[in-house]
Amino acid sequence: MATYAIIMAGGVGTRFWPRSREKNPKQFLNIIGDQSLIQQTYHRILPLIPKENILFVINQIHFNPLKRQLPDIPEENILLEPIGKNTAPCIGLASLHIKRRDPNAVTIVLPSDHLIENEDLFLRVLRVGIAIAQEEDYLVTIGIQPTRPATGYGYIQLHRKIRELNGVSVYRVKTFAEKPNLATALEFLRSGDFLWNSGMFIWKVSTVLREIEEYLPELYNGLMTIEKHIGNEHYFSSVETVYRKTRSISIDYGIMEKSQRVCVIKGEFGWSDVGSWEEAYKFLPKDRHGNALVGQHVLKETQNCLIVSPDTLVATIGLQDLIIVKSQNALLICPKSKAQDVKEIVDILKKENLKEYL
Amino acid sequence: MATYAIIMAGGVGTRFWPRSREKNPKQFLNIIGDQSLIQQTYHRILPLIPKENILFVINQIHFNPLKRQLPDIPEENILLEPIGKNTAPCIGLASLHIKRRDPNAVTIVLPSDHLIENEDLFLRVLRVGIAIAQEEDYLVTIGIQPTRPATGYGYIQLHRKIRELNGVSVYRVKTFAEKPNLATALEFLRSGDFLWNSGMFIWKVSTVLREIEEYLPELYNGLMTIEKHIGNEHYFSSVETVYRKTRSISIDYGIMEKSQRVCVIKGEFGWSDVGSWEEAYKFLPKDRHGNALVGQHVLKETQNCLIVSPDTLVATIGLQDLIIVKSQNALLICPKSKAQDVKEIVDILKKENLKEYL
Repeated sequence: MATYAIIMAGGVGTRFWPRSREKNPKQFLNIIGDQSLIQQTYHRILPLIPKENILFVINQIHFNPLKRQLPDIPEENILLEPIGKNTAPCIGLASLHIKRRDPNAVTIVLPSDHLIENEDLFLRVLRVGIAIAQEEDYLVTIGIQPTRPATGYGYIQLHRKIRELNGVSVYRVKTFAEKPNLATALEFLRSGDFLWNSGMFIWKVSTVLREIEEYLPELYNGLMTIEKHIGNEHYFSSVETVYRKTRSISIDYGIMEKSQRVCVIKGEFGWSDVGSWEEAYKFLPKDRHGNALVGQHVLKETQNCLIVSPDTLVATIGLQDLIIVKSQNALLICPKSKAQDVKEIVDILKKENLKEYL
Repeated sequence: MATYAIIMAGGVGTRFWPRSREKNPKQFLNIIGDQSLIQQTYHRILPLIPKENILFVINQIHFNPLKRQLPDIPEENILLEPIGKNTAPCIGLASLHIKRRDPNAVTIVLPSDHLIENEDLFLRVLRVGIAIAQEEDYLVTIGIQPTRPATGYGYIQLHRKIRELNGVSVYRVKTFAEKPNLATALEFLRSGDFLWNSGMFIWKVSTVLREIEEYLPELYNGLMTIEKHIGNEHYFSSVETVYRKTRSISIDYGIMEKSQRVCVIKGEFGWSDVGSWEEAYKFLPKDRHGNALVGQHVLKETQNCLIVSPDTLVATIGLQDLIIVKSQNALLICPKSKAQDVKEIVDILKKENLKEYL
């Protein structure tokens, strides 16, 4: 029974604007470290999954950036989406391709743009998940032990522990909770039985396809249409037709919240979805005044700022807690506490059709 | 008796960095309005002084920018300084050239980088000054009625009124005061008999040269050396030799504070030396949130900011009272209250020899 990986890289992330652009989204940026997030994601699982078994699902406009960053990937492992329709169609599409290669395959499903601090522990968690998914038809999800009352993540409430393997605990799931407000997030944190929903999964492709058939029958029908054309000249147009019609839906909302087969592994390997410039700031090295700096700079009385400007000298006087990002033809300046609102800037640019900045 | 003007444009202003650079200082920038400050200064006095009588003193590296901005100026009216030595040598040098053309000439002396709001009233003040200087060997200076307790200007204390012409008052001067602290500036403002020292003067060239002879004899000797070479092939090298040796000294400190011939005209024409980005902000048009904006921008919750970025989109969220200037290869961000410290940024760039940003 072979193990596969699906790396979901279809996003056109807006929260790292102006560095992230439609043609060069977050997963292709080296925001933290020398490698892009997608390169890190790929290299992180290579000890576990042979490279010919790692599939990427990307938007069709990102084929060249992906080939440039990871030239080793076989082209048949790059699955193109004509438009993004969230994670359920993406996972469904990749599962078809894996099923053709091995109907009994177990696959891990990973977002392409997360940070993992302890990679050994992460691999140990994946191994446990693969073992569980091989044994039973579980939908295994990875939950992250919360370290603060985050309001930006969904939560998973633990039920009873069903297994302990190599120091890794596996639980049945009581419920999935959407992003909470701060009071609820504090309760979740105090209660001790809620984990962050990391969006990482492990299952047999046969299991997830059966669950899609049950809970998302329209998507399933579309996938069956596509399946008929895999390998023939109508494949791309069938994907396009199905994607145009299918509704945008996450695997969490579409399947995980409804299925009776869900279990969760507690991950304590240090995780971030790097969801904003503020989050990136936390992971970057800082000078003794707490400034994270990329590019040339002259700072006076400046503290706890994130300054990213590879091509332009930045001089500051008397600033605190600001995000300053100059990239190509655009400059962003906002307090770290407003980092979530960057997507609203991108919305305005879209509304005003200022394509040269998108 | 002809009237001349000396426009002093030798400065390599640093307070408008990163727009102002050594090769393109403040007086050549169109910070306020469609014309550069030197173009505005020139056109402002054309109703009063024939253009062939308007002399410019500039640093030699600024010959081309000046010719580009004011192509009508006769080349013999452009006097080049090899290095800046403040206003006394500059005025002395120009006075030599005017004296050769007309030993009895009256000249007005103007900085090239000031703003005047009421140009008619300004011309009326100049006419009164010219009349006074023609009648008597006065050193006429123009003082500005203060409107706030400014600490960035020198002050002139009035003595008795000696003349009133066309609604313009002329006074003898009790004393010159250096830039005061805030408490002293408040006293000056309340007392009602202090004016701002504008650095604009009117006098016969013969008068000012006689005063230089008396109070700055070394400079006078240097000027006499230069005078011998005006029109011959040793002129430039004599200017260079004298400028290397002469000490840097302002006409205020060198002459005005000591001379017995000083009188002052009260100017109420609306004046600014536009000494910083904060000062420029005051004169620029603003949107309904108090933002002065040059270039493309997307602003959210942003108030009372100055944003100058002709070539780069600026997006801001939640900012107040900041100066943001992107120009060429550099970006400045600081609170308006720190605008005076911009010169310290330039000092650091000089110290670190980062010439590409100077």
